[in-house]
Amino acid sequence: MKIAFLGLGTMGFPMAANLVRAGYAVRAWNRSPAPVERLAALGAQAAATPAEAAADADVLISMLADDDATETSLLDAGALAALRPGAIHVNMATISVALALRLAGLHQARGVAYVAAPVLGRVNVAEAGQLNILAAGEEQALAAVQPLLDVLGQKTWRLGRQPEQANAAKLAMNFMIASAIGAMSEAVALVQGYGLDKAGFIELATSTAFAAPVYKGYGQAIADDRFEPAGFKLALGLKDVRLALEAGEQAHVPLSLASALRDLHIDGLAHGEGHLDWAALSRASARRAGQA
Amino acid sequence: MKIAFLGLGTMGFPMAANLVRAGYAVRAWNRSPAPVERLAALGAQAAATPAEAAADADVLISMLADDDATETSLLDAGALAALRPGAIHVNMATISVALALRLAGLHQARGVAYVAAPVLGRVNVAEAGQLNILAAGEEQALAAVQPLLDVLGQKTWRLGRQPEQANAAKLAMNFMIASAIGAMSEAVALVQGYGLDKAGFIELATSTAFAAPVYKGYGQAIADDRFEPAGFKLALGLKDVRLALEAGEQAHVPLSLASALRDLHIDGLAHGEGHLDWAALSRASARRAGQA
Amino acid sequence: MKIAFLGLGTMGFPMAANLVRAGYAVRAWNRSPAPVERLAALGAQAAATPAEAAADADVLISMLADDDATETSLLDAGALAALRPGAIHVNMATISVALALRLAGLHQARGVAYVAAPVLGRVNVAEAGQLNILAAGEEQALAAVQPLLDVLGQKTWRLGRQPEQANAAKLAMNFMIASAIGAMSEAVALVQGYGLDKAGFIELATSTAFAAPVYKGYGQAIADDRFEPAGFKLALGLKDVRLALEAGEQAHVPLSLASALRDLHIDGLAHGEGHLDWAALSRASARRAGQA
Amino acid sequence: MKIAFLGLGTMGFPMAANLVRAGYAVRAWNRSPAPVERLAALGAQAAATPAEAAADADVLISMLADDDATETSLLDAGALAALRPGAIHVNMATISVALALRLAGLHQARGVAYVAAPVLGRVNVAEAGQLNILAAGEEQALAAVQPLLDVLGQKTWRLGRQPEQANAAKLAMNFMIASAIGAMSEAVALVQGYGLDKAGFIELATSTAFAAPVYKGYGQAIADDRFEPAGFKLALGLKDVRLALEAGEQAHVPLSLASALRDLHIDGLAHGEGHLDWAALSRASARRAGQA
Repeated sequence: MKIAFLGLGTMGFPMAANLVRAGYAVRAWNRSPAPVERLAALGAQAAATPAEAAADADVLISMLADDDATETSLLDAGALAALRPGAIHVNMATISVALALRLAGLHQARGVAYVAAPVLGRVNVAEAGQLNILAAGEEQALAAVQPLLDVLGQKTWRLGRQPEQANAAKLAMNFMIASAIGAMSEAVALVQGYGLDKAGFIELATSTAFAAPVYKGYGQAIADDRFEPAGFKLALGLKDVRLALEAGEQAHVPLSLASALRDLHIDGLAHGEGHLDWAALSRASARRAGQA
Repeated sequence: MKIAFLGLGTMGFPMAANLVRAGYAVRAWNRSPAPVERLAALGAQAAATPAEAAADADVLISMLADDDATETSLLDAGALAALRPGAIHVNMATISVALALRLAGLHQARGVAYVAAPVLGRVNVAEAGQLNILAAGEEQALAAVQPLLDVLGQKTWRLGRQPEQANAAKLAMNFMIASAIGAMSEAVALVQGYGLDKAGFIELATSTAFAAPVYKGYGQAIADDRFEPAGFKLALGLKDVRLALEAGEQAHVPLSLASALRDLHIDGLAHGEGHLDWAALSRASARRAGQA
Repeated sequence: MKIAFLGLGTMGFPMAANLVRAGYAVRAWNRSPAPVERLAALGAQAAATPAEAAADADVLISMLADDDATETSLLDAGALAALRPGAIHVNMATISVALALRLAGLHQARGVAYVAAPVLGRVNVAEAGQLNILAAGEEQALAAVQPLLDVLGQKTWRLGRQPEQANAAKLAMNFMIASAIGAMSEAVALVQGYGLDKAGFIELATSTAFAAPVYKGYGQAIADDRFEPAGFKLALGLKDVRLALEAGEQAHVPLSLASALRDLHIDGLAHGEGHLDWAALSRASARRAGQA
Repeated sequence: MKIAFLGLGTMGFPMAANLVRAGYAVRAWNRSPAPVERLAALGAQAAATPAEAAADADVLISMLADDDATETSLLDAGALAALRPGAIHVNMATISVALALRLAGLHQARGVAYVAAPVLGRVNVAEAGQLNILAAGEEQALAAVQPLLDVLGQKTWRLGRQPEQANAAKLAMNFMIASAIGAMSEAVALVQGYGLDKAGFIELATSTAFAAPVYKGYGQAIADDRFEPAGFKLALGLKDVRLALEAGEQAHVPLSLASALRDLHIDGLAHGEGHLDWAALSRASARRAGQA
């Protein structure tokens, strides 16, 4: 089985590397060449263009930054056009529901199966091959790529036959993460309004009802006022909340909390905090309360 | 050490019972007499009025339903007036910051120490003496009642010297719970808008980033569409969100997520769902999306 | 017809003066004595206490600052108790629906008719006797006081038989005013984000679709960045938005715009702007956009 | 001066007709041919394609439905490419700030002046040549087309040199209209929660502080529960609120009222009300209060 891999960023590289280490023949492309060279050193083949990578692939895996990067590589740079009928494209990036729907149509027209398989987990989880994979698409195609997904993740959650279902689920998850950070941010502003110690409150919350990874991770950053280096940037958080709102609008689902969160994120960007970690949302909450 | 205990509701009864079982002399009062009789059967003394319970107590513990019940028993029915100077009142109910401030002043004028000690945990946790206790007040008073709190809870979180600080923290916690339920409700509406299975999405969320008690408990109810019997009623959830907003306004802290949540709760009450479990917030989210 | 008048503030004084000038026998009380003396100079009688003013009145008119002042004068200071059965109380202040309901019950128990009659219009309108009066109560009582209302206002809008209906209408009006100011504030922030001239945009808006008094008045203040002296303070605007939200909650009516507005007002108070004119809400909008 | 006119919809047709009647040589194109034939009957020339219309024009005026229609005609169908360098394009449609910025760049590259000139006013105002025109662009180009704008409108508001400034102002105006409708909708729900008559309250509001065209027009529809035929559809209102939010995000301006309004509009669409008049927003407010 020949694999083409597009996008060797912080997530894509360790994923592709795991496939190489598992013995798969991988031909990889990345916008900047350095990661391709590093992957080639592990045994992969280098491709100069997305189309070259896709040319003789059985399975194309893409892990590109966003909608724009996905469109550019897949459509403008000809990767989809280069795939042979019968090939399978597994798109593991977090993209919009709208683009997922459009890509599904374009793939069908080309006779290429399209699987959406965005992931949960940060870099270290990707490196360990322990991602949670949210997959949707035709069952036959899903079954065919399952061995690859098993290399990349600890579990594949099959969410439906229509690819955009996986994207909707991923956006719903990220909206829930934004809500958790936002609620913690406003709760902290509230208790600080009464002179409580921020770190003490966060320890309380994350030791009791909120003893979950997402609260512990972002809560620690809020407690420490430490937002650099950014694990996941506030500006990317805004992008995902916006994509969730767009997905909601398309399906006629009002999301009142996502709307409030979007405004809080924009407040952050307006104050030059878009490059900080997502936990810096707490700054906007504090600022509105005159605490910062 | 003589203890007066006011309020033998679903939470108060097991708490008082634990004190009796631990060997303390407890004189208890409740609005309806049945629980008093049950507690007397365990070895407590019965009091006919709040004032009678308080009369010769060293420590008064109150666990009354809300602000109104607290004011009625403490002030109108004379429990505070009956306490001797030097006594300690430990108020373990979830009340408003405004009432906490007012009570603190009234106690000080009487020479009675006032400790706020609201709790985290449901009935079964209270029965097991495993509550998390959020305590604030003068250190000497806190130290004096610590042995009692050790009977009632697994841990006492000392949050500050001003009693209302504990109430602010408790309200902040409950606001975070409301946010978790609300975010899950809207996330479920979003994925249902794309035809995903509700239960499957909740399993995904609560097995990964949201593997926390609060998400698991309410998530299961949402997945099962099972809102009766209510563990904690939607109408009480609204009350606590409102108290958080009031506390925020008093300290000049805007809480945009709490505002959105308040509206969602009122939507539920407008549709006759106030008596259902807090998880029924998901119905309002679904209704707004035309899914119900 | 003997009239008692409680509350000679910026609005109450010109209203009482108009009644005196119209030839009515007015006995007035005010918390501070100076306005009472000024009114006495016009021909009114002075009362040392609310109860003294009310003692032999046929009609009691009150125009007190808020819920607290109303309760203090009416209940604590005994004005209601001093009224004879068959008298009529016309409460023209902007109070909460909850207090209106409570007062209606207390008056009924005393055999005193209770009319709610809050007003639209600022001081100059009150001086000119050109207020719009929003009245609700029993028709017979309304008919009896109509001649007095005709002295005070250009028009009496009869809104229903239950007094709280007039208060709900008044709060709904003030919520609409807050919305107009808030929308103008955010619209100005938006166009300023693209470098447009604030004053030019406001002239455009208030010359076309928004050629209404409320937009012109507050718009001019926003255009000029002139928030002192305050015509109506931001802090009072917050109070009215809160009362609208409380009225909504009581009747199970979610008000999503009022919720967003409330947060914007609190943002203003958190930055020390509560004493500025209501138009200073625009500052909070600008601040969130990093423009201030 | 030869004029090309693209888009003869409900607004475009009367605008183009006014230019023909004023003696201008107009060559018009529309997606469907019937309006072109009607305009030709008044003396205009018909064009079979956007490019044919643009070919020898001195000024191209476009009044197309939305971003998509604008892109299709201008870019895909070659109207921009057909314009001679030195020509002027006056885009009078309500489009996004993002598209305005993109078009400005593309026009500059072609040596064509680009003026944004969206309008305020409905069909009857367009017929009467009494529109308010919000114009932005290079002063020389604005001056050159001013005689045309004088035929179409009662006043041209010059808002700046960058075309997108006019689009931002138009979106800000439409957001204010949405706010007015939304606030009136929630205010009506509030007073209805207390049993007041909807029509009576709207008469009160629109006779006093809100005696403005926008409140009177939409208020009457709400009072009468008459939402068909739609003057301006709810679904288009949602589009404009979304464009305002996108413009806000791009300039880092949070718009909390627009966010709340967006959710209310989506609620309407989820209940099949997108084709009704914008005033039908009141249905969503009523529904949330259990009144419908």
